[in-house]
Amino acid sequence: MDISNLRWWGWGTLDQTFSLQGRPNFWPSLRAWLELPDDQPQKPAVSLAEIDLRPGRLDDPVLNSLYRLLGQAVVRTDLQCRVEHAAGKSYRDLVQVRAGTIPNPPDAVVYPADEGQVAAILTWAADRDIAVVPFGGGSGVLGAVEPMPGEQLTLTLDTAQLDRLVALDRISHTARIQAGATGPEVERQLNEHGFTLGHFPQSFEFSTLGGWIATRAAGQTSTGYGKIEDMTQAVRLVTPGGIITTKNTPASAAGPSLLQMLIGSEGAYGVITEATMRVRPYPQVQDYRGFLFRSFADGIAALRDLMQSGLRPTIARLSDAAETTGFSALTHEHHGMRALIDRALEAYLKQRQYQIGGGSCLLLLGRDGHPQELGPFWKAANDLCADHRGLRLGKSAGKSWKRDRFAHPYLRDIMMDAGVMVDTLETATTWSNLPRLYDEMTTAVRAAIQSSGGGPGYVMTHISHVYQWGASLYTTFLGRQLPGREIEQWWSVKREATETILAAGGTLSHHHGVGRDHAEWLAEEVGPVGMTILQAVKQALDPEGIMNPGVLIPLGEKDKETR
Amino acid sequence: MDISNLRWWGWGTLDQTFSLQGRPNFWPSLRAWLELPDDQPQKPAVSLAEIDLRPGRLDDPVLNSLYRLLGQAVVRTDLQCRVEHAAGKSYRDLVQVRAGTIPNPPDAVVYPADEGQVAAILTWAADRDIAVVPFGGGSGVLGAVEPMPGEQLTLTLDTAQLDRLVALDRISHTARIQAGATGPEVERQLNEHGFTLGHFPQSFEFSTLGGWIATRAAGQTSTGYGKIEDMTQAVRLVTPGGIITTKNTPASAAGPSLLQMLIGSEGAYGVITEATMRVRPYPQVQDYRGFLFRSFADGIAALRDLMQSGLRPTIARLSDAAETTGFSALTHEHHGMRALIDRALEAYLKQRQYQIGGGSCLLLLGRDGHPQELGPFWKAANDLCADHRGLRLGKSAGKSWKRDRFAHPYLRDIMMDAGVMVDTLETATTWSNLPRLYDEMTTAVRAAIQSSGGGPGYVMTHISHVYQWGASLYTTFLGRQLPGREIEQWWSVKREATETILAAGGTLSHHHGVGRDHAEWLAEEVGPVGMTILQAVKQALDPEGIMNPGVLIPLGEKDKETR
Repeated sequence: MDISNLRWWGWGTLDQTFSLQGRPNFWPSLRAWLELPDDQPQKPAVSLAEIDLRPGRLDDPVLNSLYRLLGQAVVRTDLQCRVEHAAGKSYRDLVQVRAGTIPNPPDAVVYPADEGQVAAILTWAADRDIAVVPFGGGSGVLGAVEPMPGEQLTLTLDTAQLDRLVALDRISHTARIQAGATGPEVERQLNEHGFTLGHFPQSFEFSTLGGWIATRAAGQTSTGYGKIEDMTQAVRLVTPGGIITTKNTPASAAGPSLLQMLIGSEGAYGVITEATMRVRPYPQVQDYRGFLFRSFADGIAALRDLMQSGLRPTIARLSDAAETTGFSALTHEHHGMRALIDRALEAYLKQRQYQIGGGSCLLLLGRDGHPQELGPFWKAANDLCADHRGLRLGKSAGKSWKRDRFAHPYLRDIMMDAGVMVDTLETATTWSNLPRLYDEMTTAVRAAIQSSGGGPGYVMTHISHVYQWGASLYTTFLGRQLPGREIEQWWSVKREATETILAAGGTLSHHHGVGRDHAEWLAEEVGPVGMTILQAVKQALDPEGIMNPGVLIPLGEKDKETR
Repeated sequence: MDISNLRWWGWGTLDQTFSLQGRPNFWPSLRAWLELPDDQPQKPAVSLAEIDLRPGRLDDPVLNSLYRLLGQAVVRTDLQCRVEHAAGKSYRDLVQVRAGTIPNPPDAVVYPADEGQVAAILTWAADRDIAVVPFGGGSGVLGAVEPMPGEQLTLTLDTAQLDRLVALDRISHTARIQAGATGPEVERQLNEHGFTLGHFPQSFEFSTLGGWIATRAAGQTSTGYGKIEDMTQAVRLVTPGGIITTKNTPASAAGPSLLQMLIGSEGAYGVITEATMRVRPYPQVQDYRGFLFRSFADGIAALRDLMQSGLRPTIARLSDAAETTGFSALTHEHHGMRALIDRALEAYLKQRQYQIGGGSCLLLLGRDGHPQELGPFWKAANDLCADHRGLRLGKSAGKSWKRDRFAHPYLRDIMMDAGVMVDTLETATTWSNLPRLYDEMTTAVRAAIQSSGGGPGYVMTHISHVYQWGASLYTTFLGRQLPGREIEQWWSVKREATETILAAGGTLSHHHGVGRDHAEWLAEEVGPVGMTILQAVKQALDPEGIMNPGVLIPLGEKDKETR
């Protein structure tokens, strides 16, 4: 509940950043790619004191009733807390928060101490037609924690106090963990006993178990450890209609999977309070290495072969040529002998037809495990990459990726200071459809940036969650901000990208979720009968419609009118 | 649609059986275990001509309307067809059918030629309040294809004509297959192109893809290839409220998993017409071997270690001491030198404290794959089994299991002829809870057989679907039939077993499903909120309640009254 160290207008904590010291290529490259004018206006964030926040709308009798229910200490109505809980961490969120525009802050934030308090809050809120927004780390990027616009009062329910490992089953390799535990809290409590969950999204330091489950998240090592839905053996969800616990069993044929119906429910059905997670012994070795391919197609073919031949990398991350070039803009400058070696290496690569900035693509491949497994794995993986003209770069690429793995979001803040539009998109499809989806999405996003007034833009993509049957695509796009029209500009790109993804056979999201931003397209993904199912379950569990309204399931016209 | 070769009163086809020739130990062992009296009445099945079946209740105008809808050729009302579709293949079903007691035959059986006809049938039936029972292979054992008792007319919808591989995606390793394809039809069409689905339940020869998906089935190689829910990438379901197709993507975060909500829906939400399945290259080698452990506990420890150490057997099947003894009663008699070798082997085993019939347990372990993978696999698996005092028996145990793998259900018919009660139970749980569940279930079933008047009974169990986090238990129980009260007797054992399983933390079913037999316990498995979800989806997709009424979701009191 101590949020004083959080950077409410951007990513992460005040004591961390992405240092550009010793990376002289970054700004010149970015300026060239985006055709950023020297006089592009700087856009620093406002100070907290400058924000004119709508006051909390819970009147004293209501607030007092809440104090009586939970105790005064866990009910917060102060400015910083309400600002911190007013939005997620998408580009759109940050544009608004940095400008001091926070149209829909929660009226209060509560930190329940246990599941009983969570249930009590939902009953209390349903009785008063007050909306409840479940809040984990607040690091989502699709508008899933922002209160609804309109007259309905909103309570944000922060699960921060539910942060414990409740029980570890050493024999079954499962652990009951409370939903509010952040990545470091999950790992620290498991590591003490020699186990790991193995879920490391970029938001790892701040996001929570409950948030991961609610959004069907994927970590950077999902290729080896699975997505969160593969790791979750059972879940407890508190709904306005009661508590549901799914069976703690490795598999079941007792009807449809309620577990998989609750995973991905984004707070629209209730609040996840704890889950039984599948854990693994902490790996003895983590061995991550780089490879360079002459083209994205070569790299894709190698990844597909790798997965379909039964090899099981823990991590597999293939950058396209643009992202590979982007990385090189972030490398540290070398001097003296190291600089000579860099130039020699570059010449050697060029001679062998590998060229960073000329089409070559970087693959990061890694494997956790026992030392004796790694030899056969790398023998097979090296051979297979060589079949597709992959050049071994060794372990240094792996090390530098690991060092920066959670730091890139800080760079976004730095770019936003400089007036850059920067956001990410992600999807997944089958291997056979991947090239088409990649081409159409990349072309559409580039064109959309240009026509949005964002200049030539820069669009770069990687594949980072790989299956035997297909893979995800994760795209970062950069452009010049259109001062004063940042949100409209961003929406025009986002809209074009999303429609292109769906038209080209990609899923609406592989691991970010739906939220409010994707909600209008959900019907296109699941069809009218699918929407009927989602709405029927919503109606059954949350008949008053107080749970995270507008998120996941778009409000009907009727609901909109009555709000 | 040619059902003339099917054994309507028992398992399989007329040209197959389980031969007891050369297995002289079988009957003496069975008689001794069950204390079967010499005068236990023989119970042969009646002939088809002896069955006094309730005539079909579709009147001529209705029948003519159905003919106009589908064509007369695919609408069947003849005796054998209606008998064949009147029940599944559980012990209870066969007791009734063999006695000629068929209380609820369908009024007609239809064989739609395509998805359009399936949709037309549902609309036609909903307009007339006629129930529709989807029917694949009819090999289920939980009462999921028997029409409801009562006044409502019932049409059974047999998917036999939907048997084609529609499209194979060689790049993505996925295949669109129609739901009515039986195991051999699925495999033949995939094998032609070098692929396999890898789903081999005991019912493989007769059961269908749609049936597997509708019941969350598991095949004998599920440890390597996954359960059917792991193999299914997308599904098409025709409901009275419209058609739903889930997205063909290896993973998604676009809200809750509708796919996993439809898998296991047992015809209560609609008819599965096709699915996109994850397939694999046909394995170059299948190498199945036997091991002997001194106790079930040793074998369980070995299996757990095997899974948790990251080794991936394709098949792992550990028999308890009773089942290991049971196998020995089925072995072929040897003569001359082979008999001498058998005796020498037995003496050798005994000296080393392994004794079949004295507590030792057989493990069948197998691995499909490339020849070069198998060496390291067996090296590690042998070491690991040796850590738990497992004795290597070589490949002959694997061969004899493979030979008989689909034949055992024929033996049930032979035993039923002789007045034996014989049924199976299955569940799953975590590794830590497995010993307790095994002990309590085994004790309860033994006691229930005895108190049901079935004599001492024989109860034997194996573990055959294994995960890092737990495993399934599959139990066969045998007892003397109580003539004239077979169904009551069986229900008393089934009831006691199911309640014990649930009280001991097991799931209601690992791979057989819910059907009508387990429906009354589903609320205990999923809780009241879980039932609310299942019912809400049913109401949304099938508001008239025509889809397989009483299956999966128990009928409410109101529904019962109005029927």
